Amino acid sequence: MAASNRLLDLLGVELPIIQAPMAGATTPQMAVAVSNAGGLGSLPSALYSEAELRAALETVRNGTSKPINVNFFSHENPPEDTARQAAWRRALAPYYVEAGLDPDAPLAAGGRAPFNAAFASVVEDLRPEVVSFHFGLPAPELVDRVKRTGAKVLSSATTVAEALWLEARGVDAVIAMGVEAGGHRGNFLTPNSLVGDMSTQVGTLSLVPRIADSVSVPVIAAGGIADRRGVLAAFALGAEAVQVGTAYLLTPEASVSAVYRQALASAEEATAVTNLFTGRPARGIVNRLMAELGPLSDLPPAFPTAGGAIAPLRKAAEAAGRGDFSPLWAGQAFRLARPMSSAELTRSLAGVA
Amino acid sequence: MAASNRLLDLLGVELPIIQAPMAGATTPQMAVAVSNAGGLGSLPSALYSEAELRAALETVRNGTSKPINVNFFSHENPPEDTARQAAWRRALAPYYVEAGLDPDAPLAAGGRAPFNAAFASVVEDLRPEVVSFHFGLPAPELVDRVKRTGAKVLSSATTVAEALWLEARGVDAVIAMGVEAGGHRGNFLTPNSLVGDMSTQVGTLSLVPRIADSVSVPVIAAGGIADRRGVLAAFALGAEAVQVGTAYLLTPEASVSAVYRQALASAEEATAVTNLFTGRPARGIVNRLMAELGPLSDLPPAFPTAGGAIAPLRKAAEAAGRGDFSPLWAGQAFRLARPMSSAELTRSLAGVA
Repeated sequence: MAASNRLLDLLGVELPIIQAPMAGATTPQMAVAVSNAGGLGSLPSALYSEAELRAALETVRNGTSKPINVNFFSHENPPEDTARQAAWRRALAPYYVEAGLDPDAPLAAGGRAPFNAAFASVVEDLRPEVVSFHFGLPAPELVDRVKRTGAKVLSSATTVAEALWLEARGVDAVIAMGVEAGGHRGNFLTPNSLVGDMSTQVGTLSLVPRIADSVSVPVIAAGGIADRRGVLAAFALGAEAVQVGTAYLLTPEASVSAVYRQALASAEEATAVTNLFTGRPARGIVNRLMAELGPLSDLPPAFPTAGGAIAPLRKAAEAAGRGDFSPLWAGQAFRLARPMSSAELTRSLAGVA
Repeated sequence: MAASNRLLDLLGVELPIIQAPMAGATTPQMAVAVSNAGGLGSLPSALYSEAELRAALETVRNGTSKPINVNFFSHENPPEDTARQAAWRRALAPYYVEAGLDPDAPLAAGGRAPFNAAFASVVEDLRPEVVSFHFGLPAPELVDRVKRTGAKVLSSATTVAEALWLEARGVDAVIAMGVEAGGHRGNFLTPNSLVGDMSTQVGTLSLVPRIADSVSVPVIAAGGIADRRGVLAAFALGAEAVQVGTAYLLTPEASVSAVYRQALASAEEATAVTNLFTGRPARGIVNRLMAELGPLSDLPPAFPTAGGAIAPLRKAAEAAGRGDFSPLWAGQAFRLARPMSSAELTRSLAGVA
């Protein structure tokens, strides 16, 4: 029932606990605390510029001598689609009017940065021991640049087909991401724009053993795990480590807004997968926007461009103490999480004192 | 990690394995084989008349001296809604035309029988050791009639609120039914008619520990479990037994049509929760009707009346070897199931030779 040494050796860590990268909520201090506790701390880069990532990664490097993980999104930015953006703004216009905002005011771009040559240079310079990707993998030449640094490469699979695709392209381990997981779904072969395809996404309990039966690389379980019981269950299913995100939102090292913290503390079994905030399906606590326009909809323009038009609504609502338009990313196990430090949580998940 | 004796003592069985009642697919022979192997065989009654249930239960009684479970749906039949039925028939009319059927031909009622006084008499006469309900519980006086026979009472919960509701009304154990489970969702406090509410249903991995933390009666895990690994995971989460359905569809004791058997053997990670076949959400393998009209839709009339208009389409398609309109109920773990006898499967799930 204990995690095999195979994955611990691969990652160079003592404990089979990976703190999930959560762009916006994970801080360098969180990653440092997790790695120093013996787990694998992860730094998300999707909301960073190259310079910001470099600074954050230097902070992590200075905080720990243990292995660290840097996570990148590997989508391609879509072509400009003015018609869909206009339709999206029309759909949101009543909310703008209600908030006293101009529905036609120019917008800042709402983006998430994909892995690119500039980020690859940061990896080459600062040499994180592990690099994980979300939404498949970047172009082969970029993956090769990462591998030549000696970094171990991980990526998420939401189906057996995705796990086989990743294994064939040389990942060192597969993160089996069940539908319970918070934040963006990692799916990249299953279409993400259709309600029907999202409805077939599988829970961790079924997904982990299927993927463990299908690939020869180690499997990391993600989704629905927030305490030691979930970790033991994941090992029983064939996982060699777990990736836990939501539980770390309750640590003092998390960067979480007041409305987000309040939602995490008060809501009851009410998360859903929505594409309204970015254009890609992601799980969060149900709020007004999700209840009224979704949770899944054909309206939002392609990832990551849907967020620009949400941002002013979010800002106005949060100023009034409401999370009506905030992406309150959380996994289905969020009510199992208990407030404690990132180091304590890492050890608690691993079952060590 | 072993199941506590508490639930085994309560149910009077040797193995912590409950074969799920699957109306249409479970035979008396399956229930007999499971109970004789040391698990708890379950006879579903939703598609039986009183006389049919009595005959089936007598067959089970004659086949085993071990404890048996009889399962009932506890919905109330809805009032006639001719406008919604007409709209539903209009939506299905193109399929009727394509199949060479008359869209206006009179229909047989498509029903599922709820627990009632006649079924209570069967329980009083044949005294199953366990009675389980789905969709909450029937009226208190009917529950009392069951309890006075000495039967232990189980029911399914899909949320903590439902588990607390059931415990307050005296159930002996709660079945924590994760979203992975095949067939009808057991939800009864969460509305079942809205797409959004269904999207918040929780996976077994998160649900079992939450319910185990919230009630003092034993918890049975259901959903996503098809082999020994899932059983061990359920125990780690706090369950004292598991209820497994889909894996029993591959046993020789199952009554499964040719198209159904073919879908179970060939499909890949493609189940979804749909309300098209009966009017209530239920998980099955995605087929043409689900892909084209759903999987969830506001069109079907209230449970259980949606099925009448589907029946002629199903019959015609199955005659042509296609499951386009058949409810192919299956849980998300269906690809983990391996063909074997019901007795072997029961022992294999329990980890005994």
